[in-house]
Amino acid sequence: MNTIDLRAGTLCCPLPAALDAMGERWSFLILRGAFCGLANFEEFQSTLGIARNILSNRLTRLVASGIMARTRDTQDRRKIAYRLTEKGLALLPVLIALRQWGECWGNGGPSNPVLVDRRDRQPVRSIAVQAQDGRELCCADLEWIERSQVS
Amino acid sequence: MNTIDLRAGTLCCPLPAALDAMGERWSFLILRGAFCGLANFEEFQSTLGIARNILSNRLTRLVASGIMARTRDTQDRRKIAYRLTEKGLALLPVLIALRQWGECWGNGGPSNPVLVDRRDRQPVRSIAVQAQDGRELCCADLEWIERSQVS
Repeated sequence: MNTIDLRAGTLCCPLPAALDAMGERWSFLILRGAFCGLANFEEFQSTLGIARNILSNRLTRLVASGIMARTRDTQDRRKIAYRLTEKGLALLPVLIALRQWGECWGNGGPSNPVLVDRRDRQPVRSIAVQAQDGRELCCADLEWIERSQVS
Repeated sequence: MNTIDLRAGTLCCPLPAALDAMGERWSFLILRGAFCGLANFEEFQSTLGIARNILSNRLTRLVASGIMARTRDTQDRRKIAYRLTEKGLALLPVLIALRQWGECWGNGGPSNPVLVDRRDRQPVRSIAVQAQDGRELCCADLEWIERSQVS
């Protein structure tokens, strides 16, 4: 069993703060919906089958975290649209990595549809931790070091 | 604002099942601890400052999900050790991607220590969605297609 061997990694870690924004099932599912083009409250509500008060609470939190922005719908200006901000769009690798893990280790077999590169219609690569030269790294290849000692 | 344009991505998606196992703040933090070498109940408890009943509940769920395994401690066989299974180790890219997002978009400035490749002591790459040829892909480059139509 290989683990990253220093406990240092749990100090000054940005993960707890990231989880305050995203460490919750519904927030991930709302985000997935937003990446797939959902924008209005009613669309999220009917597509996800989420209770209205929970959806309202989670959207408010995602807006407060700067992950989504509350704007006017461009088609119908009486409606409110919830859109991913740049900060929200930057969560794409997290979502895809979690989805791929679910595909690989879930019980459901190969999932459908498949996420592909629009240019060549080939599935995206498995998301991996990589060295600067592109080598895939596993836990045994990783180490925590002081920022001042990075070469 | 670019989104993956088909709503198809929310159908047959392995994400909800993945979130049943991992869509919770403490589960992520326990996992982070395990990746950093924590193994015993008392170590998790004191390092994370988590209530004993919640820790016990989350460890049981992680074991039931096959993400961690309950084994005898190799140093002291009277103790129980919680170790990452292969399925648990496969969550490394998800954790690192979320940590990097927190680093990039949090308010904390550059985090310390830094996760490096043991071989050259260079920081790991930013985790990204990539095409088969290694190009980085953003939302606008992605599309959901039927599995039978993958080229």
